[in-house]
Amino acid sequence: MHIQDPASQRLTWNKPPVNVLVIRKIRDESLVEPFKELCRFLVEEKQMMVYVERRVADDATLSKDEAFGSIRNQLCTFREGYDDISDCIDLIICLGGDGTLLYASSLFQGSVPPVMAFHLGSLGFLTPFKFESYKTEVAKVFEGNAAITLRSRLKVKVVKDMLQRSPEPPQQQQQQEHNGVLTQVHTNSEAGKVTLQLQVLNEVVVDRGPSSYLSNVDLYLNGRLITSVQGDGVIVSTPTGSTAYAAAAGASMIHPNVPAIMVTPICPHSLSFRPIVVPAGVELMITLSPDARNTAWVSFDGRKRQEIQHGDCIKITTSCYPVPSICCHDLVYDWFESLAQCLHWNVRKRQARLADVSDSDTEN
Amino acid sequence: MHIQDPASQRLTWNKPPVNVLVIRKIRDESLVEPFKELCRFLVEEKQMMVYVERRVADDATLSKDEAFGSIRNQLCTFREGYDDISDCIDLIICLGGDGTLLYASSLFQGSVPPVMAFHLGSLGFLTPFKFESYKTEVAKVFEGNAAITLRSRLKVKVVKDMLQRSPEPPQQQQQQEHNGVLTQVHTNSEAGKVTLQLQVLNEVVVDRGPSSYLSNVDLYLNGRLITSVQGDGVIVSTPTGSTAYAAAAGASMIHPNVPAIMVTPICPHSLSFRPIVVPAGVELMITLSPDARNTAWVSFDGRKRQEIQHGDCIKITTSCYPVPSICCHDLVYDWFESLAQCLHWNVRKRQARLADVSDSDTEN
Amino acid sequence: MHIQDPASQRLTWNKPPVNVLVIRKIRDESLVEPFKELCRFLVEEKQMMVYVERRVADDATLSKDEAFGSIRNQLCTFREGYDDISDCIDLIICLGGDGTLLYASSLFQGSVPPVMAFHLGSLGFLTPFKFESYKTEVAKVFEGNAAITLRSRLKVKVVKDMLQRSPEPPQQQQQQEHNGVLTQVHTNSEAGKVTLQLQVLNEVVVDRGPSSYLSNVDLYLNGRLITSVQGDGVIVSTPTGSTAYAAAAGASMIHPNVPAIMVTPICPHSLSFRPIVVPAGVELMITLSPDARNTAWVSFDGRKRQEIQHGDCIKITTSCYPVPSICCHDLVYDWFESLAQCLHWNVRKRQARLADVSDSDTEN
Amino acid sequence: MHIQDPASQRLTWNKPPVNVLVIRKIRDESLVEPFKELCRFLVEEKQMMVYVERRVADDATLSKDEAFGSIRNQLCTFREGYDDISDCIDLIICLGGDGTLLYASSLFQGSVPPVMAFHLGSLGFLTPFKFESYKTEVAKVFEGNAAITLRSRLKVKVVKDMLQRSPEPPQQQQQQEHNGVLTQVHTNSEAGKVTLQLQVLNEVVVDRGPSSYLSNVDLYLNGRLITSVQGDGVIVSTPTGSTAYAAAAGASMIHPNVPAIMVTPICPHSLSFRPIVVPAGVELMITLSPDARNTAWVSFDGRKRQEIQHGDCIKITTSCYPVPSICCHDLVYDWFESLAQCLHWNVRKRQARLADVSDSDTEN
Repeated sequence: MHIQDPASQRLTWNKPPVNVLVIRKIRDESLVEPFKELCRFLVEEKQMMVYVERRVADDATLSKDEAFGSIRNQLCTFREGYDDISDCIDLIICLGGDGTLLYASSLFQGSVPPVMAFHLGSLGFLTPFKFESYKTEVAKVFEGNAAITLRSRLKVKVVKDMLQRSPEPPQQQQQQEHNGVLTQVHTNSEAGKVTLQLQVLNEVVVDRGPSSYLSNVDLYLNGRLITSVQGDGVIVSTPTGSTAYAAAAGASMIHPNVPAIMVTPICPHSLSFRPIVVPAGVELMITLSPDARNTAWVSFDGRKRQEIQHGDCIKITTSCYPVPSICCHDLVYDWFESLAQCLHWNVRKRQARLADVSDSDTEN
Repeated sequence: MHIQDPASQRLTWNKPPVNVLVIRKIRDESLVEPFKELCRFLVEEKQMMVYVERRVADDATLSKDEAFGSIRNQLCTFREGYDDISDCIDLIICLGGDGTLLYASSLFQGSVPPVMAFHLGSLGFLTPFKFESYKTEVAKVFEGNAAITLRSRLKVKVVKDMLQRSPEPPQQQQQQEHNGVLTQVHTNSEAGKVTLQLQVLNEVVVDRGPSSYLSNVDLYLNGRLITSVQGDGVIVSTPTGSTAYAAAAGASMIHPNVPAIMVTPICPHSLSFRPIVVPAGVELMITLSPDARNTAWVSFDGRKRQEIQHGDCIKITTSCYPVPSICCHDLVYDWFESLAQCLHWNVRKRQARLADVSDSDTEN
Repeated sequence: MHIQDPASQRLTWNKPPVNVLVIRKIRDESLVEPFKELCRFLVEEKQMMVYVERRVADDATLSKDEAFGSIRNQLCTFREGYDDISDCIDLIICLGGDGTLLYASSLFQGSVPPVMAFHLGSLGFLTPFKFESYKTEVAKVFEGNAAITLRSRLKVKVVKDMLQRSPEPPQQQQQQEHNGVLTQVHTNSEAGKVTLQLQVLNEVVVDRGPSSYLSNVDLYLNGRLITSVQGDGVIVSTPTGSTAYAAAAGASMIHPNVPAIMVTPICPHSLSFRPIVVPAGVELMITLSPDARNTAWVSFDGRKRQEIQHGDCIKITTSCYPVPSICCHDLVYDWFESLAQCLHWNVRKRQARLADVSDSDTEN
Repeated sequence: MHIQDPASQRLTWNKPPVNVLVIRKIRDESLVEPFKELCRFLVEEKQMMVYVERRVADDATLSKDEAFGSIRNQLCTFREGYDDISDCIDLIICLGGDGTLLYASSLFQGSVPPVMAFHLGSLGFLTPFKFESYKTEVAKVFEGNAAITLRSRLKVKVVKDMLQRSPEPPQQQQQQEHNGVLTQVHTNSEAGKVTLQLQVLNEVVVDRGPSSYLSNVDLYLNGRLITSVQGDGVIVSTPTGSTAYAAAAGASMIHPNVPAIMVTPICPHSLSFRPIVVPAGVELMITLSPDARNTAWVSFDGRKRQEIQHGDCIKITTSCYPVPSICCHDLVYDWFESLAQCLHWNVRKRQARLADVSDSDTEN
């Protein structure tokens, strides 16, 4: 039995990185200065080609700042859903919370460049680097040899049976077209089937949506019905996602290097419905149970929420395209540090449960 | 339906308190100075009659201290298990951890005087008062009108069938005689039955003891078998005990003013064995299951651990003698403060689970 | 300390019951025959005055049945939301699932007559009687002396700050007027405040509604902020409700006779947010947290779902009007039977966790 | 990223199997007939060389049975701890509960032959085959191409610092020598160090043993202290063990094909101590915490229970020698079938949590 040493995965550059995509959280004013500082550093000191989203570049605070003007003019801009930059980026740098990495993941539906993620305030699971020392850290990454965690993603396919349903509101349709580059909405060869395919880094959630009523969905593994979920819903997550919504729903927490998929019920009606962990690579499928009286709703890393009706199905398996996430220390330290900082895992007051007050009883 | 206002319970003195029992944790050197200070204050400034255990008074550090000699000579001493002081104490003052209160509870198998408990280091569930301000706090309590929590106890009776068993080692027998005043070991009128009766403040635990094998015990409520416990054991606790071992075993936490008894399995074999809460006043009984291949062990607030064999039974109900525990602030504030301080209840980092990174998706 | 014997509550009739309200689940065809049988029995054999909802009496299957015509003509009908029958009913009989009792509870916002509830298929928590033997069972109840469980309810008041908000859709308004008799919507003397008051038998749920984002609500007890809930939401339930949604969210299960209120977070962001149980009679209040970016939604026994915005508050306390629910056997047996039947509580395969295969190791 | 298809592992024979070890549960009379039947089949019909433990062959019921005499004379017998058969067995067949497989695992501290395990009564996690059809099933296995689950084991090394401790009772020493072949007790080159090395299939448990007091142990991963465990103890388990004691302690359940190690606290003092899953191949180490006032106890698949003192350490990593366990159907079906049968996983009554009783409210 061959046991892979997960610590052996390291970043190496075949050719020096040139094109850097910088992602920042929108509408957080506190990020404007760090963002400008980082761009200036990358463009002027490191001679990088820096990509940013057009709406980031067009942000009022940024465009009004004349001192930043010369840098701003050198930024390459793109629009999500229209311009495909997925082939030309060597490195992604994120500024902000875990959401920036989820967003970065959504931009790269195929192969993903290495991601270096900075937190500004407090440590996140996906943002291990402190911004304070960004110059040194970025320089080290450019040199190569950084430890990386290959975070597996899930490839999710939603097949909708359009013949069985009433037409959706048109603005919803339009939005899916806008996102067409990324999410591959297309009408299948089978008549009336519409397919949406997405990569998720944390989880796919199927829940009862705005309804007060339990959702009833069936879960298949490699084509076989393994159980029905009656409750608020079900979470299918990566190990990365096991510390996000799945943890809130009661799951054990899985190190991102374990090749696995986690299935966690949300408030299940059954007392015995414990979360399960299955091997990476299995094929999961979720449909409404035949006797379900209500529809269900699906979302992908918290986005693109949509209704699932009878006849639709959601197919989930491990993606071939993980997210190579650069470690700050190493993949053991970073994970346990974030468990402690983000989730207060096993943080406690030292205290004897049973007090040692009486000598005569210490033997008892 | 009459709903009692739990905030209405307050301490009132029929006659001014005179006899004060001071309990301190043994073998904790850091408590010697506070203990001496408190005794001096009670004896000299408040003219109280102060009771302490003889081994506390005889402690080497104390008896060598000449400056304390005159106070020490005025202390009334007693020996646990020999001298019964349960009728002559007006107030108990505890110094140390939660264990001192459990110990105080064990000294008073009938009616319990009000207890005022000080923590020295960090706040405990049962020790709400800071020692720093002890003079003011004690004075306030002497004035009366302090809020109290009537902490219910469980009356536990162990009936052992001595005919069916091999004799126990003699030193164990002797120890029970020493504790005779407190724990009422007596041979029952029924031939071969030995009964032990105890009041517990936290919990009765029945577990597998030193065995690697599952314990199998049957649980009866009001004479009816309600379930069998297969696992590491079972905890029958008061609401006070719900934040102790029961919380570790997964129970919900119950405010001490709820008149209830909690039954919590310890690592049950069954996934669906959720803890339950039943009304105060019901009669519980625990025996080995008829097909149990191993014995079980019982302990009472972590003490007096002993083996339970086929033919024995443990009877548990709400005691008529609660522990009146004096509140520092009030019974709501004190409890939630200790949940936060002792158990870090819902202490967390504020963080959006699902990040708000992308404008175009906020509607989804 | 006085400990009430919960088994002492029994049904006695001051005068023989005359007016019986029969509630059946709508749109379940399998209930038509039992319903007709029961009505015929009550009217013809027991000479009762039978009340049913007008839409139940007007049901097509019923009105087409000529053989039932004479009985049907003797039924008293009423319309929910228009006719107030709450003062004239001596006994309620429910046919169907637990929902019929929740519905009965909603019809009686003040004092509730005793309720006798039959399940047709499988046992429910709130429907202990088998329909097969309904004649004997109803006769026994008419004789009096049946055991009853006084199921506490929660009185919930929603105070909405109408000045701060955009107008709601008109059909929603109208529906609340229709329900005016029952739910007491009225404009408060304070300008711009609208108050809704309701009794719930299971729970009040505050959740994130259709949003993908965490809800952030603050929880107050007796006017003091005790914690903030960050997650999918929070459930405030009666002991009766502890086996419903609260159990799915991980709560311990509380016997309906324990005078308590349970607070259970739904998928909390914090690992340490264990459910808590507080004494009946405390005043709870829930508001959006000041920094909440999303609204929350509230529902009452799964009904009347509505949005909660900044400035609104939900006040919850134990109601003075419990539901007297008639036991089939007694309040211990009925509860444990329904735990086993409805939730498979601690139902398991007997199995040694650690196998006893090797003689030489049994000592180890 | 390469994702291994776990379904691809299949049994192939390089040369036809000749030597079969048959293991049966001792002292279960109901197994005598199946055992004889199986031996007769293997010896007479399949011309196998059948190995059994001497005490199994010497069992009174067996040796008295003259009809079985000729078969019995052809059995090869061995004594556990004296005779090493680990190199000459082609196939292991187990009769009885999961314990037989744990025992088989203990006999093979190095490479393990494929194991085919029959349950007699009810399905076990490790015993998927029904005895009823044993002839067909065994024949199929002899033909090869059966699906197998490679169940990972843990290699556990206990290093005891003998200089710091008082001598152990001699019989304990002797027993370890008897087991010497299997468990490799030897005095290390370092003065005063004694090392015990073992392979476990389910779990290593470190707990408080017979003490009432919390155990305090430190957990290291790849040489770094990651957390301290304060509670009843800690379980380090394989995925196979995740459905055994770890499930009772609250862990999520992991399919045996996931290359991982699970760490589960037992009744931890901290509310936030959720179980974690780390990648196979990491090095774990457990020691008493420096400030621990009590010792701890360790056991291996429920056996060889022994005390751990200050100065001792337990080193755990994934073993190079998994147990190839032959599937009855395939590794997905078998696992979910045993989750349902052994643990009643998500077995429930279909029921609407929120009842659909009132038409007018279905929109709410």
